[in-house]
Amino acid sequence: MTFRLQEFKNWFQKKEKQNVKDLLATAKKPEKISPKLHRFYGGKVQMMPKCSITSTADFAIWYTPGVAAACREIVENPRTSFELTNRWNYVGVVTDGSRVLGLGNIGPEAAMPVMEGKALLFKYLGGVDAFPICLKTQDPDEIVHTCKLLEPTFGGLNLEDISNPKCFQVLEDARDQLNIPVWHDDQQGTATVILAGLINSFKIVGKKPKESLITLVGSGSANMRTAYVLIRWGIKPGNIIMVDSNGIIHRNRKDINKTLNPWKYDLTQKTNSECRTGDISNAFKGVDVVVAASKPGPNTIQKKWIKTMADKSVVFACANPIPEIWPWEAEKAGAQIIATGRSDFPNQVNNSLGFPAIFRGVLDVKAKIVTDDMCIAAATELALFAEERGISKNNILPTMDEWEVFPREAVACAIKSIEQGVARIKPSKQDLFEQATTIIQNARNSTKLLMKYNLIKKKPLQKNL
Amino acid sequence: MTFRLQEFKNWFQKKEKQNVKDLLATAKKPEKISPKLHRFYGGKVQMMPKCSITSTADFAIWYTPGVAAACREIVENPRTSFELTNRWNYVGVVTDGSRVLGLGNIGPEAAMPVMEGKALLFKYLGGVDAFPICLKTQDPDEIVHTCKLLEPTFGGLNLEDISNPKCFQVLEDARDQLNIPVWHDDQQGTATVILAGLINSFKIVGKKPKESLITLVGSGSANMRTAYVLIRWGIKPGNIIMVDSNGIIHRNRKDINKTLNPWKYDLTQKTNSECRTGDISNAFKGVDVVVAASKPGPNTIQKKWIKTMADKSVVFACANPIPEIWPWEAEKAGAQIIATGRSDFPNQVNNSLGFPAIFRGVLDVKAKIVTDDMCIAAATELALFAEERGISKNNILPTMDEWEVFPREAVACAIKSIEQGVARIKPSKQDLFEQATTIIQNARNSTKLLMKYNLIKKKPLQKNL
Repeated sequence: MTFRLQEFKNWFQKKEKQNVKDLLATAKKPEKISPKLHRFYGGKVQMMPKCSITSTADFAIWYTPGVAAACREIVENPRTSFELTNRWNYVGVVTDGSRVLGLGNIGPEAAMPVMEGKALLFKYLGGVDAFPICLKTQDPDEIVHTCKLLEPTFGGLNLEDISNPKCFQVLEDARDQLNIPVWHDDQQGTATVILAGLINSFKIVGKKPKESLITLVGSGSANMRTAYVLIRWGIKPGNIIMVDSNGIIHRNRKDINKTLNPWKYDLTQKTNSECRTGDISNAFKGVDVVVAASKPGPNTIQKKWIKTMADKSVVFACANPIPEIWPWEAEKAGAQIIATGRSDFPNQVNNSLGFPAIFRGVLDVKAKIVTDDMCIAAATELALFAEERGISKNNILPTMDEWEVFPREAVACAIKSIEQGVARIKPSKQDLFEQATTIIQNARNSTKLLMKYNLIKKKPLQKNL
Repeated sequence: MTFRLQEFKNWFQKKEKQNVKDLLATAKKPEKISPKLHRFYGGKVQMMPKCSITSTADFAIWYTPGVAAACREIVENPRTSFELTNRWNYVGVVTDGSRVLGLGNIGPEAAMPVMEGKALLFKYLGGVDAFPICLKTQDPDEIVHTCKLLEPTFGGLNLEDISNPKCFQVLEDARDQLNIPVWHDDQQGTATVILAGLINSFKIVGKKPKESLITLVGSGSANMRTAYVLIRWGIKPGNIIMVDSNGIIHRNRKDINKTLNPWKYDLTQKTNSECRTGDISNAFKGVDVVVAASKPGPNTIQKKWIKTMADKSVVFACANPIPEIWPWEAEKAGAQIIATGRSDFPNQVNNSLGFPAIFRGVLDVKAKIVTDDMCIAAATELALFAEERGISKNNILPTMDEWEVFPREAVACAIKSIEQGVARIKPSKQDLFEQATTIIQNARNSTKLLMKYNLIKKKPLQKNL
């Protein structure tokens, strides 16, 4: 646990005295040194041998002539490409750069630092060998087709930062056409961590999920998938109220096109059974939970709207880098639990809690797909881990520092995959746990060791950058 | 230097007493344990962080929110994607699996062990971060198009094991359409190392290259490019005699189609000025050098043909795993220098002497292409390195163990790239040498360190496999 309640109280009181300008400056600090450090290291991930090389004579085994026998075995039994090569642990982080972070359509070259960052997190937190694949096309069919061509290389694909609604089509088609798991982190990854946070929030405020009203502000890839995952988890579809830039979504909205965006249209019909209408402010009235994944704040959500929510209200303001409302503002307006996307505030809704461990589990059973149920199993385990070591209103989720959560989450996901019949192999729970733990520890220990011996250079002092 | 003359003599005498069956068994040995070891390690290359991670707080710099600033810098100046990410050092090892080693068209999944092996050599010998890209298509236009789509990820592309003559079109088109260097190792890589070996062979036998007759047995990707590189280096085109499965290639051959294979047709017109005709046996008569890159032996080339060669003849029998003629047979028939593709015979013509260091040089100056002149510069340096430490008839080339050759070769290639105006940056020779040395040593030392601390497992005893 990195966050302590007393610290937060002190920090909170301090923040009240600061003006927003200072806070923005603080928020910008990582951005100031980040390019300098990126340049210093010349990138964030590299390739590394994973087999023994005691002399160049070993290359007769790893390369020609010995390697021919490994090739022939795969010809005879194609499945062994998952055993004789590292394919079983390779994940492509695929983007077209059409919607990168909050930066918009910046293209594949400029998306590369994010994809490399993702590969870094995949390895460090999940022991997954992820490689950035930044594509020079923004055509959905071409993206899917390229994924198909790349299939023989990878054990799974992680779609990333592809714009909405294109991303839904790409995910659906790629899942249909490929025999390896494909997921879109901005959809399933975000939905998983939001669900984990909500599970524990419901426990803390003592409300029953099935009787709660939930408003989703923003109808992009994250909240659309969150709606589906919440419904699958047990929330009544009619109890979900979605909001987009034109206001509350209801079944009589004429501007949501069934052909262009069938996924959104489907939710238009399923959600909001009371057929509430009006602008965003109306979506807060009497609801128990607001999950915002919309545009950076701090004034996207107003204090006076929070005041109209039900008692013991829960607000997830997930926009980065500035949440839709500052947490202290939301608290003053009566919210009991507030989560954001930021690591420097309590209750970070952080995708890094999801994708590395979920893919660890997926790869360890050679799953064919990542189902929403597997995401729910991962979310449930994340919530349970936090509950077991103690939760409170400012501590609803594990943090990245609690690395022990990752093997547990991986196993939960793997076991669900086996239960659902989408796993190609079925190791025991104990074996899965030991394998995930070993692989993840190996990744962390390798990094530490290379740093210790200066083969990964020490971070320079800021003044020297 | 791993090979000592006395040892070779002993070994040679021993071999004479062995029958070919035993030798074949020896040749097969690496193939016997190779699949087992591949399975034990579950692949040969992995991803690894290359930036400092002291706590998860660093992810605010490497990932969101800090990373956004690195992205924005690339948007403003796209060239900085080569500085702020590891793109500058990423090489895609691209194949369609249509002609893998001597195994034929085994497809992309089965090609993966070779591509991973290549990535391993790229890193260990050249410090290059190469990633296998095995494509589920064998259509040349689609391969080129996919390379184009992948361009934003990579600093260069290494085409591998693509069948002939498709590979010539793919290389030419990819070079035309991409702004990063593309090369085909089976063409340029092999030609580079053959040239290096020939340079020193000419020195040893005391013949003038310009006055020599050279026969190339086999007209696949390797020998076709070798012909072009030899011509560029200074061999008279008319002094080259090429042989394919239909016999000697001459300007009156009607079966070589200008449209289907313009590259081969071009050589048909340029080479063999005496217009020699007939079958393969006729191609040996009176020539100084035979370079065979055709089909595995040991009887592809016959002793009696060697006997018809000029005095002090040179024979490169490069087929793997069994050379077109056993070296002791060639020697008995009068050849003075014999080279093969095998690491257990003297004078190994080994592509690994080429591609890792050449790409090191190419990447270090961010070259736009790899010209044949850059290959010639690399070959010249390879030959010079060997000459400086001493050459003899059984020791014409450096070996992979002489790692000091690689930074020198990289620098030679980089300097030529600068001279030819295809380098994007122009560091000094000294800086290039230091950088290449550091990067290569870092790769080797990292591997050693991970092995020492058992983060790369020890090779198990053979009986335990």
